[in-house]
Amino acid sequence: METIEKMIEDFKKVLDDSTHTSPETLKHEMIQWLDETLSPRLKQVLEERETQSSSEQTVTPFVVSGKIDYEKVILKFGCTKIDESLIDRVERLTSRGAHVFLRRGFFYAHRDLDKILDCHERGDKFYLYTGRGPSSESLHLGHLIPFLFTKYLQEAFKVPLVIQITDDEKKIWKKLNKEKSKRLGRENVKDIIACGFDASNTFIFSSYATVGGKFYENVVEIADCVTVNKANSTFGFTGEASTAKMIFPSVQAAPSFSSSFPHKLFPDEKKNIPCLIPCAIDQDPYFRLTRDVAPRLDFIKPALIESKFFPALRGNNGKMSASDANSAIYINDSAKDIKRKINSAVTGGRDNLEDQKKYGAKLEEDIPFQYLSFFLEDDAELEHIKKEYGEGRMTTGDVKKRLVQVVTEIVERHRMARAAVTDEMVDAFMTPRPLFE
Amino acid sequence: METIEKMIEDFKKVLDDSTHTSPETLKHEMIQWLDETLSPRLKQVLEERETQSSSEQTVTPFVVSGKIDYEKVILKFGCTKIDESLIDRVERLTSRGAHVFLRRGFFYAHRDLDKILDCHERGDKFYLYTGRGPSSESLHLGHLIPFLFTKYLQEAFKVPLVIQITDDEKKIWKKLNKEKSKRLGRENVKDIIACGFDASNTFIFSSYATVGGKFYENVVEIADCVTVNKANSTFGFTGEASTAKMIFPSVQAAPSFSSSFPHKLFPDEKKNIPCLIPCAIDQDPYFRLTRDVAPRLDFIKPALIESKFFPALRGNNGKMSASDANSAIYINDSAKDIKRKINSAVTGGRDNLEDQKKYGAKLEEDIPFQYLSFFLEDDAELEHIKKEYGEGRMTTGDVKKRLVQVVTEIVERHRMARAAVTDEMVDAFMTPRPLFE
Repeated sequence: METIEKMIEDFKKVLDDSTHTSPETLKHEMIQWLDETLSPRLKQVLEERETQSSSEQTVTPFVVSGKIDYEKVILKFGCTKIDESLIDRVERLTSRGAHVFLRRGFFYAHRDLDKILDCHERGDKFYLYTGRGPSSESLHLGHLIPFLFTKYLQEAFKVPLVIQITDDEKKIWKKLNKEKSKRLGRENVKDIIACGFDASNTFIFSSYATVGGKFYENVVEIADCVTVNKANSTFGFTGEASTAKMIFPSVQAAPSFSSSFPHKLFPDEKKNIPCLIPCAIDQDPYFRLTRDVAPRLDFIKPALIESKFFPALRGNNGKMSASDANSAIYINDSAKDIKRKINSAVTGGRDNLEDQKKYGAKLEEDIPFQYLSFFLEDDAELEHIKKEYGEGRMTTGDVKKRLVQVVTEIVERHRMARAAVTDEMVDAFMTPRPLFE
Repeated sequence: METIEKMIEDFKKVLDDSTHTSPETLKHEMIQWLDETLSPRLKQVLEERETQSSSEQTVTPFVVSGKIDYEKVILKFGCTKIDESLIDRVERLTSRGAHVFLRRGFFYAHRDLDKILDCHERGDKFYLYTGRGPSSESLHLGHLIPFLFTKYLQEAFKVPLVIQITDDEKKIWKKLNKEKSKRLGRENVKDIIACGFDASNTFIFSSYATVGGKFYENVVEIADCVTVNKANSTFGFTGEASTAKMIFPSVQAAPSFSSSFPHKLFPDEKKNIPCLIPCAIDQDPYFRLTRDVAPRLDFIKPALIESKFFPALRGNNGKMSASDANSAIYINDSAKDIKRKINSAVTGGRDNLEDQKKYGAKLEEDIPFQYLSFFLEDDAELEHIKKEYGEGRMTTGDVKKRLVQVVTEIVERHRMARAAVTDEMVDAFMTPRPLFE
């Protein structure tokens, strides 16, 4: 406690030495002191606590770390778990089986998904909104997940889709050069189109190209409802954050409201059209804020369907990193790369064949098996592998071999689809045009 | 000091009670505590100091109060006083007499005006940028001042001019409804056009209509260089400020850089064209920040020419308020209104005729005389009035009567000019088009 005492002493000194005549300026000095002096010291003091709880999870749009307890995350965020009856209802309303990501519990949480289903059941329109922050030349398998799922939603519900390429975000957070950010954005759009979205029903747009007009008007409306304190508490920003970071949450929020788009996109700009957002659970803070703000602006709260994280090849701790090429399989990796990467993945297989036969693999730690549960469509085969591998009758090598086949096929199919994406197609997807027709 | 002690106790308690495991969240709680608990108490403690210095001046873009010591303001802001030799140089380079606002010391401070004159002397181009936040149906005399002066600069230097109508600002600060803010903006544009700007050389634009594309790209670049702490210390914002307020300084900064505009406006979007900004001294913080940021973005620092405040009818304490209709003469006031308002203005005349004859008027407190020094072009007549009124040979009534004549003529001339402004003219001024030709 001595350190706390010392901090108090210093705080007192700052106050006593102050010659400010307005509370605002004095307060500002104190906040600066908190940032520059107190914060580093606190870090030291708090290190103890942190080592005590080293497995503590962090899930924000910027940092995902620790072993994630997904139940805890939704408890903390306040979203709702997707249960069997909700999945049944989706299947009933869409007259088709639920996507593997949904029926295997990867998309596991939601907000207001039931209301979107009500809306669909009444025959009213809604639209889908998802996005991507361009950070690498090529997508990796984890990046594909939300798009594959979104494509399923678009096909199943036959609704329009808007996809925001947040090239401004990458400039602000990753300090990517603006031109590079825009270029990567366009490259990523090609990978997204290659997923097979319906051109007549999908609008892909870059923040840089779209913030303006109605969109900027809504950004201002939203930003005006969000105080700096609120942004700080929601995203963990501090006074050292740039003012660009302060506005970005409103830029990501705006596409949730149909009036943000030129009236050409939606039939009536005055009318609120409900929005469903498929995204990973770490994006929840953005849309929690968006939902808080919506009623104050007479907008409809966007609904969410939220996924867990796709595991990195090196293990289950959080998201894959686009900046570490070996942590993920990229959509433009060669067959040789894929084989090499999968063979070096973390597994739950035992140290030797004898133990493997005796105890079976620890499936919850086994990345190859987890990857199969994403990409092997055949439920029966997956169940078979689960049983055989978990009980020691299959080896890690067998499972890896099967995964190499499955992934190579997906990547090969994607490579061909992407090769067929022309600049004209990119322009067509990125041209504002009526989506409800 | 007891209150400080108590505050320290409470601060300690907040720290001791905390169960945070990260410095960020703990810090946030403390900042919240500063905002919600400490700030009101500090206000009380600081009241003493404030009453001791009740004549203390405040000059920010949002609050202007107290008796303004203009010398102190430029000392505090760090701009430079305009001296005779600079005025002489302006006259020499433009081959015409300096505008009354310049030669009578109303525009009294600058930043880099000498560099702009160097640029002009070399035959290089520069452009003018000024703006208006729409807050009332009609402009008042004080609002006209920067436009009249800007018009003089445009004519004298034969340079392009951009005028930003910050309709977003009024939404953010005055909570004006967005549609009303846009409508008032357009009404104000008519008054601005009626000042007689050169249509071929002037681009008037609303923030709502223009933020986007290149402009938004520059807003992000600028905002990315400005931390929340910096915005707080420059503008006196606190954590309770909206995130919209955090971005607005970058929106006001962007027109200082020629690359913010579509390439059609300026001949080469890659090339930096120097910018000179005529404005009132309270806008200095915006452009101080802009100038700080410019070198980091390889932009040229904008130059400034800065005015004092046009006095309110009710006296010299700061700017006029558009929300108090009787504090100012509006451009759409009737002749009767003008007479009534001028007759009720604060004067420096003595209580009775005898004293007036004996002591003369206190000119520095006399609003009618000060108004004449703005609007009476004739130096000889003004000098005559100054002497006669100051030495008691003219009465307040005489001066008011002359002012009524002068102002009525200006307002009448403006009314006719404004009546001739069509919607087509407004659209023409507001269409992006080449300005350097």
